[in-house]
Amino acid sequence: MDNFSDELRRRTEHCNQVISAYLPKAEGYASRVIDAMNYSVEAGGKRLRPMLVCETNRMYGGSDGTAEPFMAAIEMIHTYSLIHDDLPEMDNDEYRRGRKTTHAVYGAGMAVIAGDGLLNFAYETVLRAIRSETDARIRERKIRAASLLADGAGIYGMVGGQCADLMCEGQEKVSAEELWYIHKHKTACMIESGFGMGAILAGAPEDDIAKLLKIAENTGIAFQIRDDILDVKGSSEEMGKTLGKDAEENKATYVSIHGLSKAEQDVESLTREALELFDSLTARNDFLRALIVSLMTRTH
Amino acid sequence: MDNFSDELRRRTEHCNQVISAYLPKAEGYASRVIDAMNYSVEAGGKRLRPMLVCETNRMYGGSDGTAEPFMAAIEMIHTYSLIHDDLPEMDNDEYRRGRKTTHAVYGAGMAVIAGDGLLNFAYETVLRAIRSETDARIRERKIRAASLLADGAGIYGMVGGQCADLMCEGQEKVSAEELWYIHKHKTACMIESGFGMGAILAGAPEDDIAKLLKIAENTGIAFQIRDDILDVKGSSEEMGKTLGKDAEENKATYVSIHGLSKAEQDVESLTREALELFDSLTARNDFLRALIVSLMTRTH
Repeated sequence: MDNFSDELRRRTEHCNQVISAYLPKAEGYASRVIDAMNYSVEAGGKRLRPMLVCETNRMYGGSDGTAEPFMAAIEMIHTYSLIHDDLPEMDNDEYRRGRKTTHAVYGAGMAVIAGDGLLNFAYETVLRAIRSETDARIRERKIRAASLLADGAGIYGMVGGQCADLMCEGQEKVSAEELWYIHKHKTACMIESGFGMGAILAGAPEDDIAKLLKIAENTGIAFQIRDDILDVKGSSEEMGKTLGKDAEENKATYVSIHGLSKAEQDVESLTREALELFDSLTARNDFLRALIVSLMTRTH
Repeated sequence: MDNFSDELRRRTEHCNQVISAYLPKAEGYASRVIDAMNYSVEAGGKRLRPMLVCETNRMYGGSDGTAEPFMAAIEMIHTYSLIHDDLPEMDNDEYRRGRKTTHAVYGAGMAVIAGDGLLNFAYETVLRAIRSETDARIRERKIRAASLLADGAGIYGMVGGQCADLMCEGQEKVSAEELWYIHKHKTACMIESGFGMGAILAGAPEDDIAKLLKIAENTGIAFQIRDDILDVKGSSEEMGKTLGKDAEENKATYVSIHGLSKAEQDVESLTREALELFDSLTARNDFLRALIVSLMTRTH
């Protein structure tokens, strides 16, 4: 795709607009927690998950209006996970994307409930979209998409990955299987919800939905391995974070367990498999294909 | 009701069984967070919210099977709110109901994600119940009940109340309006979800649903005022917590703002109004009536 970076910028902006439209207004005695929620969501980011919902939905001819509450909801869930991850008892990060983290600005107690408020608001948002849907066929799809979102976010998905990640801290040795579980659950599961929800909402063929979930899994895991590689190889400036931080903290990574060359090989084969599957789908979306490639080959 | 305490014990046991059946099995790399979730839910408690779902559903001839996932879900949400409330950055409580709190046993980081896991699992549970429902009429009711649950738990409900409560800490003066907001949102909103969900699931008349929500509001607020009264008057042994704790911590209560006699009058008038409304419903449930009275007149 020739003009990928222009398209990416345009679509990120579209995601930002959709997300903003679904954020609650800060008012009354709850205004502080709502401020903290909105501060966190509006801190920016790639908007990758809502973009995946949007693109897979468009790919199968779905209407943007159907996908929008699900785009907002998945970003709310992603953001809540970052707020709680940054807490003093978790990663204890004061900065993210160059901005103060939620607990650094609002205090740890408010950050806990801002995360809770966002997670809950995601479900308020999708349940409202389900309730107001009058077309029975679309309503059915919305219920299925909401279920996929919930499953990807919970103990069989992202929360399970966070648990395993937390258990690894201070652990002498982390197995290859355990690290795979973490990358799959902490990252790939919500990428799967993104790819899957859009396709489900648009009524994609079941075979295509299954393939997209596999493509998503590969993309999510390769994305994480790439992150581990960049921590060793990338320039500090490009990554925007302290280089070799993982190694310094003695954190198990795909590179520390498998070595750099195997890590690079695995990213390559996960990418190849994902693109082969993508090209076998009954619909096409050149931008989405380029997005997948960019995620897996990124240098920052 | 003659044998109220026997009935209460029997129904609490029924709630315990229903809740247990919906808890996840601890296995794999996520087993620690699932253990922490189950530890917290199985710490016991009155099971008031699931009992309200069960009783209002039975009152209008609903089947127990329809209500059960919603009984479990509301208790999961209640429990997550306790886990996060007890965290060091919130109330910093080491004990609850005579047992160590979740963060005291599992660490603060694991307690954060155990709360997240429970909140999310509540929605996994109700969405699964919606998806598997084949009767379109009941399905519609389940969607509405899930929405009421989400609205009661979020920023326009419980999380809003927690925000206001947190903002009051260290505040010189708390207004009567602010304290009413806290009692209404932090406590009454989830009581409203409990009363409302059962009635909705059973297909109660709209007028009755509206009345039940008002009864629930009165019950929830009177319950909290009663708590404030008991903190001053009750015997330490009966309350199972350090007496006068609120006064010691210089915390604004209904009694400190309005005085003891006005607090007692208000509980009485809230109770009277609730019972008048209850007796005007198109269905009856003697146990539920006795439960409302017991909550508002309790001495421990």
